Amino acid sequence: MKRPWQGQLEKPPPEDVPRWDPKNPLCPGATRANGEVNPNYEGTFVFPNDFPALQPDAPEPDNSGHPLFRAAAARGVCKVMCFHPHSDLTLPLMSLLEIRAVIDAWAELEAELGASYPWVQIFENKGAMMGCSNPHPHCQVWASSFLPNEARLEERTQRQHHSQHGVPMLLEYAEQEAHRKERLVVENEDWLVVVPYWAIWPFQTLLLPRRHVLRLRDLCDSERDSLASIMQRLLIKYDNLFQISFPYSMGWHGAPTGPHLQEDCEHWQLHAHYYPPLLRSATVRKFMVGYEMLAQAQRDLTPEQAAERLRALPEVHYKLRPQ
Amino acid sequence: MKRPWQGQLEKPPPEDVPRWDPKNPLCPGATRANGEVNPNYEGTFVFPNDFPALQPDAPEPDNSGHPLFRAAAARGVCKVMCFHPHSDLTLPLMSLLEIRAVIDAWAELEAELGASYPWVQIFENKGAMMGCSNPHPHCQVWASSFLPNEARLEERTQRQHHSQHGVPMLLEYAEQEAHRKERLVVENEDWLVVVPYWAIWPFQTLLLPRRHVLRLRDLCDSERDSLASIMQRLLIKYDNLFQISFPYSMGWHGAPTGPHLQEDCEHWQLHAHYYPPLLRSATVRKFMVGYEMLAQAQRDLTPEQAAERLRALPEVHYKLRPQ
Ligand SMILES: O=P(O)(O)O[C@H]1O[C@H](CO)[C@@H](O)[C@H](O)[C@H]1O
Ligand SMILES: O=P(O)(O)O[C@H]1O[C@H](CO)[C@@H](O)[C@H](O)[C@H]1O
Repeated sequence: MKRPWQGQLEKPPPEDVPRWDPKNPLCPGATRANGEVNPNYEGTFVFPNDFPALQPDAPEPDNSGHPLFRAAAARGVCKVMCFHPHSDLTLPLMSLLEIRAVIDAWAELEAELGASYPWVQIFENKGAMMGCSNPHPHCQVWASSFLPNEARLEERTQRQHHSQHGVPMLLEYAEQEAHRKERLVVENEDWLVVVPYWAIWPFQTLLLPRRHVLRLRDLCDSERDSLASIMQRLLIKYDNLFQISFPYSMGWHGAPTGPHLQEDCEHWQLHAHYYPPLLRSATVRKFMVGYEMLAQAQRDLTPEQAAERLRALPEVHYKLRPQ
Repeated sequence: MKRPWQGQLEKPPPEDVPRWDPKNPLCPGATRANGEVNPNYEGTFVFPNDFPALQPDAPEPDNSGHPLFRAAAARGVCKVMCFHPHSDLTLPLMSLLEIRAVIDAWAELEAELGASYPWVQIFENKGAMMGCSNPHPHCQVWASSFLPNEARLEERTQRQHHSQHGVPMLLEYAEQEAHRKERLVVENEDWLVVVPYWAIWPFQTLLLPRRHVLRLRDLCDSERDSLASIMQRLLIKYDNLFQISFPYSMGWHGAPTGPHLQEDCEHWQLHAHYYPPLLRSATVRKFMVGYEMLAQAQRDLTPEQAAERLRALPEVHYKLRPQ
């Protein structure tokens, strides 16, 4: 962090997104790539991704050749969920009721797609820096016929810890962090947000319930309200850090679904990961390149330093602060 | 790939880098951050990184607490190697003799630092898009007291394959690819370059020797010459793809060193990875975000499509082509 930065600068996010743009395919009343017209929705709005990466009918590849060359069909569906009818809003600028509606829609989609698919990945790419090509507040939901790599890794490590210690790893971890406090960012009666001990992105966080919860659908009414509240507090801090709409990719991991609904998944603990790219300022990001790609991630600041900076930030959004 | 791209555009690399800039700390005769003055070097030039991520004397952390919170000291040294005295050159624009000098310097550093350190990571971040903050042609060499994650993974999978099949995995893989040809980009008597079967970056490649070679230092004279030649051919194709100085991170993986020099490392095969970020054009990159970070990489084009495009490109650099 001591090196003067003479490298690439990012463009800060645009400040002038129109509230409604009939040419934006995510807006109410707009026409999408497939010719369909969006309803004049007033809350959340879910539709099939017009350019899906996964399809339900992918053919089985030929695997009769050499054993080093093995492939498997990846089947699934991709959906898009708009958070709100207004393009100029983001989650940290929405009301608690509006965020709560997003949470309910997430839980519904997880249950609906998870009825048959083993994994339902809910994720949000926020900001152009994170490959998001549409400023309208939205997330994606990709359901797959297989456990993706990250899910398999979490399945393995959580199962191993549970069988060795008899307690869900992330439940024990959350208890430790709540007690230690040095990596804590925000907390309430049901949830806590920490910069995890193993964080590799500068301001990476982990959002954890205090109670043992397997899946989004298992959250009770009051836990959904307190989730809306802690998300709002975290995301306002994020925006306040560099006084911009803070870019990140985030997503939910919970116990697998589909056929796994019938299995014992007690080793799982629901959680969300936030991976923000920025390091020094609104325009200087962390590059995960050379050494990181070829050897191992290396941190530019410690999780404790990052947590301390986030903790110290106000919980009123800089755009809504009285001048 | 069918989706129209309305997202972030990258800035193409600058075309007007001065050959010599006394304010650039990598140039011959320039003063570095620590006050030292570079010699007027005429070939390659190696010096200690003035902002090292690894240091030889990192203290041992306290690990007396809870078993979920475990850390270890990461010790090492970081060096920088300039490829050439001229700032306006890159490897694909250098002569075979000049590239050969880089290869010799790599092998020397690997031997020198590998005498005591278990892992010597040679890597090049090329282009501002890959976090490179200095246009002068250079790479970095980080030697560490431990096997980094990627090295440990390659150690494990290569060892497993060797004990099961009695042959080094990547030697068998190279033979298969040389025979199948569909993922082949360039080849010569000693080397081949493929877009690997498991590639996740659009134009990712793997550079492999045909002979069983453990480390850079083991390459004989003629293999170093043919390596210079195949690197030049690959990198010219890369530059020709979008007619810009093609950004990438690349690095060498070979058998571990230090104490491992005394062990049986026959399962290892020397190779280099090239990870370029671009996808559609000089200005549209592949974003490894949301689904990729939280679930699993997904490809925008197949390895066979990428290999075919690279194969079809001329082996004369677009800047040196007669108009
Ligand atoms: O070493 P540099 O050029 O200062 O920095 C660059 O390479 C490092 C090693 O891959 C990365 O950690 C940095 O994010 C990147 O900017
Ligand atoms: O799905 P989108 O918004 O078209 O695309 C974005 O998210 C995907 C899933 O993380 C990535 O594969 C793409 O690289 C990114 O641009």
